[in-house]
This record gives sequence, C-alpha cells and structure tokens, in this order.
Amino acid sequence: MPLSPAAHADLAALLGDRLVTSAADRDLHGRNETHFPHLPPDAVAYPETTAEVAGLMAVCARHGVPVQGWGAGTSLEGHAIAAQGGVTVDFTRMARLIEVRPEDMVARVQPGITREALNTELRATGLFFPVDPGANASLGGMASTRASGTTAVRYGTMRDNVLGLEVVLADGRVIRTGTAARKSSAGYDLTALFVGAEGTLGLITELTLRLHGQPEAVSAAVCAFPAMAPAVEAVIATIQSGIPMARIEFVDAATVAAFNARDKAGMPEQPHLLVEFHGSPAAVAEQAERFGDIVAEAGGADFRWAAKPEERAALWRMRHNAYYACLALRPGATAWVTDVCVPISRLAEAVEETRAEIAASGIPGPILGHVGDGNFHAILLVAPGNADEAATAKRLAAGMAERALRLGGTVTGEHGIGMGKLDYMEREHGAGWDVMEQIKRALDPAGPMNPGKMVRGPR
Amino acid sequence: MPLSPAAHADLAALLGDRLVTSAADRDLHGRNETHFPHLPPDAVAYPETTAEVAGLMAVCARHGVPVQGWGAGTSLEGHAIAAQGGVTVDFTRMARLIEVRPEDMVARVQPGITREALNTELRATGLFFPVDPGANASLGGMASTRASGTTAVRYGTMRDNVLGLEVVLADGRVIRTGTAARKSSAGYDLTALFVGAEGTLGLITELTLRLHGQPEAVSAAVCAFPAMAPAVEAVIATIQSGIPMARIEFVDAATVAAFNARDKAGMPEQPHLLVEFHGSPAAVAEQAERFGDIVAEAGGADFRWAAKPEERAALWRMRHNAYYACLALRPGATAWVTDVCVPISRLAEAVEETRAEIAASGIPGPILGHVGDGNFHAILLVAPGNADEAATAKRLAAGMAERALRLGGTVTGEHGIGMGKLDYMEREHGAGWDVMEQIKRALDPAGPMNPGKMVRGPR
Repeated sequence: MPLSPAAHADLAALLGDRLVTSAADRDLHGRNETHFPHLPPDAVAYPETTAEVAGLMAVCARHGVPVQGWGAGTSLEGHAIAAQGGVTVDFTRMARLIEVRPEDMVARVQPGITREALNTELRATGLFFPVDPGANASLGGMASTRASGTTAVRYGTMRDNVLGLEVVLADGRVIRTGTAARKSSAGYDLTALFVGAEGTLGLITELTLRLHGQPEAVSAAVCAFPAMAPAVEAVIATIQSGIPMARIEFVDAATVAAFNARDKAGMPEQPHLLVEFHGSPAAVAEQAERFGDIVAEAGGADFRWAAKPEERAALWRMRHNAYYACLALRPGATAWVTDVCVPISRLAEAVEETRAEIAASGIPGPILGHVGDGNFHAILLVAPGNADEAATAKRLAAGMAERALRLGGTVTGEHGIGMGKLDYMEREHGAGWDVMEQIKRALDPAGPMNPGKMVRGPR
Repeated sequence: MPLSPAAHADLAALLGDRLVTSAADRDLHGRNETHFPHLPPDAVAYPETTAEVAGLMAVCARHGVPVQGWGAGTSLEGHAIAAQGGVTVDFTRMARLIEVRPEDMVARVQPGITREALNTELRATGLFFPVDPGANASLGGMASTRASGTTAVRYGTMRDNVLGLEVVLADGRVIRTGTAARKSSAGYDLTALFVGAEGTLGLITELTLRLHGQPEAVSAAVCAFPAMAPAVEAVIATIQSGIPMARIEFVDAATVAAFNARDKAGMPEQPHLLVEFHGSPAAVAEQAERFGDIVAEAGGADFRWAAKPEERAALWRMRHNAYYACLALRPGATAWVTDVCVPISRLAEAVEETRAEIAASGIPGPILGHVGDGNFHAILLVAPGNADEAATAKRLAAGMAERALRLGGTVTGEHGIGMGKLDYMEREHGAGWDVMEQIKRALDPAGPMNPGKMVRGPR
C-alpha cells in the first residue's frame, strides 16, 4: 500500500526535502547484501534529530504506515528492507559522536555513526569500541541486530557493550534506558530488550557505549592445520585453557583459496586459524607461547606472525572481506550467508557435518567463523537465476539451523532473524516466542514497527 | 486477605504437607535482613519440581492469590517478603546442581542452590561461578535481583553470567530462554528481561550459568590510605589503566574499626582497599606490580599480602561479614543498608559527599563498596525503636539516591528495588517506567506476581 496523500503531506511538513520518494532512493533502500527480494519502501526519511524521529513515528502511527530503520544497509538477513512498504528511516544524518568521557570509558553516539568512523574519532583518546562484525556497520544497526564478530570472544557482543539507549517508541514517546554507571539493578533491563529487537519495538536514536583501553601490545598470527577437526579441537582447548584470546577465527580451505585468489595471500590451501592477542607486552608473549603449545599439540604448523600494525591491518582486512573474496570464487553468484552458534563442545561435530553436507550438495560453500564463541558461517554460492541451486542453498541453511538446535545451540549467533529465520523462532523458543509476541503487542499494538520481522503478523 | 478455603484446598491437593501455614513458617518468611516491616505470607509452598511450580501458579492465578519467590532470604531491600500476603514459594527443595558441562563451561542448576553450595560442588571440575554478593544467596534470588558483588569488576554481574532460564509465568506456562551457546541474535533477550525482574514477571525454576576457569594463580592484598579521596583516586586510575582486577573493594575507617572489633584485624583505622588478582603466575605478578605503582603514587601504604589460600579466605570472609561487623558496632541496632552506583569519574565526589552527610547526621554509617564498578554502600545504624534516627537514615538513603541520579548513575547498583526504592523508579526511568508497567501488564495482567514491587500497583 503506497503512502496515502495525507500521510505524505504530514511527513513532508515535518521533514521538508528530507522526505524522499525518488525511485533511486527507494530502490537503494529496498536492496540487501544477500539473496532476499528487492523490497523498496514508499518513502525514505532523513531525520536530523530525535524530535524529528518522534514526530515521524507519531505521524506514521496515526496513518498506520510501516516504519523500518536503516543504518549502513550491511545486514545479512534483510532486516532493513521494507517487507510491507512504508517509510524507511535512514540515519545517515544522525551519525555524530556526541560525547566521549574518557575517565568513564563511555561514549554517546547517534545511531548512524559507523564503527570505523567511531574508532577513527576515538583514536587519540587511547580507547576503542571493540565490537567488530567485519562490515562497516552503523552502531544503531549493530545494536538492533545484537551484532558481535571477531572480537566478541574477548570483549563481548553488543549486548555487553551497550550501557544505555535513547529509543523512540511506536507511539512517538521517547525513553532513555540505562545510565553511564557500569551496572544497575533498578528495574527491567530495557536496554537488553531493545538490543537485538531489530527495530520491531522502537527506533534507537542514541547509544551509550562501553569503551575499552587500546591494548598496550597486540600480536596476531595465522597457522595452518592438516584438516578441519584438529583446528576446531585447538580452538576448544584454547578457550578451555582460559587464554584471553582477543580474536580466534577459523577459515576453511575454500576460504583460504578465496584469499589466495583475491588477496594473493600465498597461504597453503588448508584450514587455518587467525588469532590476535591483546595485553601488556609480557602478557601477549605469554599468551602467544601458551597458544603455540596448544597448536603444536593439535598438529598445527606454518605459524606466520603479524607483529607490525600494517601487517595486522592487512590480515584483518582480508578476513573482513572474506565474504567478497568468497563471492569472487563464483562471479555473479548470489550468496546465501547463514550463521549458527552451538555450545563449544559440539562445535567440531557441527562444522564437520555442515562441511560434509555442503560437499555433497555440489554448490560451493566456504565455512568460516568466530569459533571461540561456537559461532560459524557458511557462504553458499548460488549461480544467478538457478532455482535448483537456490533450493539447495535453502536446504543447506535449514540443515545448519536444525543441527544447531539439535546440538543445544541457536539458529543465529550474530546475524539475527530478519527476513531469513522467522520460521525457526517457534522451534527455538517454543512458548517463549508467544511471550515475545505479547511484548511486541504491548509496545507496538498497531504493529507498524518493522512489520514482517521477529514475531508473527497480526492475527 | 487470607488464603480462601478453596485456594488452600487446591494448593494442598497439589503439594500435600509441602503447603505449610504454621505461624512459625509464615513468620520466618515474613522477615527480612534490614529495616522493612514484618510481612508474612498466608502460606509457604515447598515445590520439588517445575511442574509443581506451574501447577501452583495456575491455582494462584485462578484464585487471585499473590505469589512471591524465596531463595535464601538474604535480600537487602525486602524483595521476598509478602507485601500483600498470599503464597511464598520457598525453593529450598529445588536446590540441585542438575548438570555440569565442563567442556562448555556451563552448569544447569535449580534456583534454590546457594552460591557456596554450587562452588563446593564445582571444586573438582577446575571451574567456578564467580558472582559473589557476599551473602550465601540462592542462585534464583541472585538472578532475580541482578546481583553482583566483589568480583563483578572482572567477571560481570548475573546479567553477564546467566545464559538461559526456565521460567514459570503468571498463568502457569513454562518457557525456556537462551541456550547453552555463548551468544545468540535470535529474538528478544528474554533471559535479560527475567534477570533483575525480582519475580514480578515469573518464577525462575532453572538457570543455565556461565562458569569460569579457576585461576591458576591468585594473590590478594590490603593497603591503607591516609584519606578516602586518594583511595578512590587509586581505584579510578587502576580501572583506567586496564589492569584486570579480580576484586577491588573500598572500606572506610569506620568499617575497618568494625573489622578490628569483631575480627581482631589489627588494621590501622584508615580507609583501605582490598584487592585480588587472578591469572597465570606471571600475569598476577605483573598486575600486582602495576597496581603497587598506582597505590604508591596515590599515597597508599602498609601493603599486606595474603598469598596463602587460608589468608585469602580469612580476608574475604571478613569482607563478606562486614555487614555483621558493622551491626556489632551498635548492638541491637537496625540497619538501613543502601547502595548506589555512579560513573567512575564521579565516584570520589559521590563517596565524599555521602561521607560528609552521614558525619553531620549523628548516626553511625560505615561506607564500603565494589568501587571498581562505581558501586558503594552505606550501612546506617539506627538505635532500636528510635523514630528520629530512622527518619534520619531514610533521609540519608534518599540523599544518596538523589546524588547518584544527579551524577548520572543509578539508585541501585546491585541490591535492587524491592520494598525500598520504588519511589525512585519514575525519577530514574521517566517514561521508561511506563514501558516496564506495559510489560508487566502484558505478562502478568492480573498482577499476582510479587505485587507491590517494581511497578505501580493496579490503577
């Protein structure tokens, strides 16, 4: 249903030429990074203040117009596309670092700021924001999807690093959750409720973030393994030994092939671990030595150290661009990117079974992931327009999700539900999904907040 | 309103002689650790299974009977007393360690198990559960109040260490939240919603807990400071330096006097820090050296190390019994125990102003706390039956809460709202408190779950 003339007029009165209905802009905001259909909104709004977001929500509530937030568009499960049209709220004009309080190790930011922009601004303070999903995502989007990434094994996810939020609710009310204190026992944890809610309960207009000290010393390395199982076993042993890894990433032989092809990495085409250590110089040296012992025990070899900042930057740039490197393995392909997270004791089993199922399917599907958390991804590459292969990818992704549930894990460790995993919510949560729906109905009774995501539609 | 004969009959049919209405048992469950009135329930239930809890909730919902949970009764804000009578559910018969999965570093427990019992059972596994509020509280109670304590600075609070829950809702439905995986982006964070909800949304019947490796090396120390300000400044410098303190506790001169009187501690009656380091032997030595430098810079002295396990046990036993030591400073006194948490940059100011206000009031009030988190307590000692002093204590506690809000903090870092801090909920949360009420009404529309706590009563 397109925007009614009355709704359009009210929104234009509020936002002027920052309410855009051009085909180009709507088209851009209907796109997604992976395989979901093109679902453009009827209009794109570019608010500059919380008051404008609140005004916009009040108008949309009055006219029954769907509303979804948009940060950097890097979501992998189609969270931000307009499943039922309406208005997409693009936060690129609310992208400021509002305040850094170095002595409290907190920053207040607007939702549109990206993690790279934030860390660039923080550089001189000696602090950084650690959560790193790879993509240069917006902080509002990262909070909304409960993002994590390569450093979560040490620093936690968005759940752990958002201290407070300002949120515009479905009826236009503005609330603040949390404080700049490190902890609180005062009331329901509303911060945690909105982190991961994927914009279905409100729009985040400000975040108070927990910062961390830039590590005094950093060291990174890659090491090769003869097969997948010993690499995963080395990860499990490392986590259980309590070495405070800053990053511990697994890539399979297919991913390494993609690195070699795109980045001329010159790595042996075997499974690898990519690791990083943070701490004092003595602590980093001790951690590296203990990790080296575990790797040697597991049959790993060919350690290559990246001690210089530029070598480390190149290493993690390569890892962060793994998705694009894998896409380039099959030019023109559409990717089905899916993630699951399992208890660490079941990780080897989960990865091996997934590997075998992908190998038997006949479509390319590199596996990689944040294995220190038990979290891994498959990038399933489907030839353009090939419906059979798309069905195969869908079946493989379903197999991964079902396996994760069978092994006591979750259907998504960090990508979220979005358009892709709604079908698993009841399987994972049972009656808990009904509770989520009760909360949704309490806070968004008319249902305009990112409809079609997270909970059942109106019944 | 006492239990109706019909409600009593239904509950007795379910629980037999594990539904108790004796005066002694009701009396015990109407008591609290501090200054709140004696508010006994009409009956005490001792369920042995989740199914019994679900059945009990269904009966109470049908008859409109209030229900509150009871763990170890160690709450400091009267959470578990029966504000409106009804049934208190005592979990002492649901106190088992159900399962330890050492390879996943998780344990599943029933809510009635205490933290000391849990850690005793875990000892042989090389793992431990770190959250340590001092009292030998039950894990269900600790989750319900979002407890933390001395080790939160390193290991986090209950928010960070509960991976999943089984919860019986107000209508008797049973849900499971979370998984044994370390993280998830699948849906609203119901685990975080029930942690800290103080039993107002449901009763926790099982917890999946995150365990940590017992540190290879541990070292602890006390050191004295000439005044409060340099001690607090040393804490701030330590946190900002990134030293991964396992514990960093402040006690003022009055608390030290209590230690000397009760525990023959032989400490100089000055402000002290009590600290602990966890890690490899080399890491602990390095941390201790860096901390020593900061203390020397701040004018601290008289370092006393407790390297042996029995010395450390004595040190932390003394700290954990600080409440009783302070009570003994004024035999027969009633304690008003209150806690606040502020951004670490405002900690010195918050503690100093509180100190001055207590000193001017004429009643004893030792100050101590988990200052690495910005969290501190006052133990205000009121002569028995002295209404003037009680009014003074109330005013001092109010002053602390208002100061915490003014400084950007929270009215409670870890004790919770309970009977004591309902009046501050609107001040701290504004419209966010209305959102909490919307959630409460969605999940407990008739309001029998721990009524009189956390949100406004029915309007």
